[in-house]
Amino acid sequence: MSAKMVTAGVLLIGDELLSGRTRDINLSYLAKFLGEMGIQVREARVIPDVDETIVATLNEMRARFDYVFTTGGIGPTHDDITADAVAHAFGVGIDHHPEAMALLTAHYARTGAEFNDSRRRMARIPHGASLIPNAVSVAPGFQIGNVFVMAGVPMVMQSMMDAVAARLEGGARMLSRTVGAAMGEGQIAEKLGALQARYPDISIGSYPYYRGTVFGTNLVLRGTDSDLLDAAEAELMTLIRTFGVEPVRVSPE
Amino acid sequence: MSAKMVTAGVLLIGDELLSGRTRDINLSYLAKFLGEMGIQVREARVIPDVDETIVATLNEMRARFDYVFTTGGIGPTHDDITADAVAHAFGVGIDHHPEAMALLTAHYARTGAEFNDSRRRMARIPHGASLIPNAVSVAPGFQIGNVFVMAGVPMVMQSMMDAVAARLEGGARMLSRTVGAAMGEGQIAEKLGALQARYPDISIGSYPYYRGTVFGTNLVLRGTDSDLLDAAEAELMTLIRTFGVEPVRVSPE
Repeated sequence: MSAKMVTAGVLLIGDELLSGRTRDINLSYLAKFLGEMGIQVREARVIPDVDETIVATLNEMRARFDYVFTTGGIGPTHDDITADAVAHAFGVGIDHHPEAMALLTAHYARTGAEFNDSRRRMARIPHGASLIPNAVSVAPGFQIGNVFVMAGVPMVMQSMMDAVAARLEGGARMLSRTVGAAMGEGQIAEKLGALQARYPDISIGSYPYYRGTVFGTNLVLRGTDSDLLDAAEAELMTLIRTFGVEPVRVSPE
Repeated sequence: MSAKMVTAGVLLIGDELLSGRTRDINLSYLAKFLGEMGIQVREARVIPDVDETIVATLNEMRARFDYVFTTGGIGPTHDDITADAVAHAFGVGIDHHPEAMALLTAHYARTGAEFNDSRRRMARIPHGASLIPNAVSVAPGFQIGNVFVMAGVPMVMQSMMDAVAARLEGGARMLSRTVGAAMGEGQIAEKLGALQARYPDISIGSYPYYRGTVFGTNLVLRGTDSDLLDAAEAELMTLIRTFGVEPVRVSPE
């Protein structure tokens, strides 16, 4: 594998994720989106809207990964403290950004809603950051260093990622093959371990499923070399057939 | 608030969560389940099936929180390394546990499936741990110190939590009130911040929503004192009405 590995950390910010009120759907979206660009998410963290927690976690993650993507906490209310915390983490000031102010002024003029102090908070951007456009609700995210700060509302976050994509440098693209087998994973586990040992450059995952009274196993092969994946997939299908089970290629996954 | 705060960390283990293949639903379940017992989830982490990562993360979290709950990686296949990693984290040995072996022997005798070496792996339990029963698929989880190690399959994890509940000591139970308002959060943000300042023992969250072309804001009050919550909720509803909007009590949330 000659192409380099590019890594990312995801930081999901918001009390509502830790109370169970909101179930996150941003991590899986980001993981897939980035994976298709050859950027591997290596860790995600879910933390509350607490300044010192955001600062410490962000500083640790931005040192460890090529990119960090945050979601949540950039709206107009008192609990939206992410922009200030990111400024603290980078040790820079924060102020109303002229371009963000212009965007929001035009937006509120169009809608007729008042552009009040709270809404002006959404134009507060750390010094040195560049804006990330938001095609859904206008208030921008921002990039500072290797950190991309985005909204928590999935539709808005997804619109921001469309704008962010052009700024990212991808690496070796991770490819995958999924094969389903109507058998318990415990039945195939030993031979699967042997297959994994023969293909150290491929990661083989085994995921049992239960659908009512039916159970089975999805086997996922992941790697960056498509020829190697084809060879491992062919061996895996032969292996499943030795148990008298017909493998099912699950695609796309 | 006289009752003590009891804290928890959640550790979600599995490559499939970081590739986007699987969308986690265990965190929100655990957060609600524990919240109802007065145990506050303070942080969650999603990490890959890598021994040194599991060891380092678990050791950090079990020192910081009263309880740690892990999901994933305790099945029969080569990528199920959580039990071994937990043993490493605690610096203890790991072996086939007699009680777990008895449970699984009886299970496979009933089902007629072979109790092979791979399936025996599911009886490997760190020394000093106690078993967590599994009413769904029999293979147990385990508790060691303040750490509860459970399956990743939601149905199985939920069955394990039913057994774990009796071992947990809860604290002050977090209560919540949710009020919906058909208005932008930017419109109410300033007065909401003032309300928050008057109620420092209550946490007020503001969550915008978009439903097609309709948008609005859910305001969530959280705290342990129900009288205080009632007072804050009444003020909040009065506040919303000053904007000519009729608040909607969203319940249960």
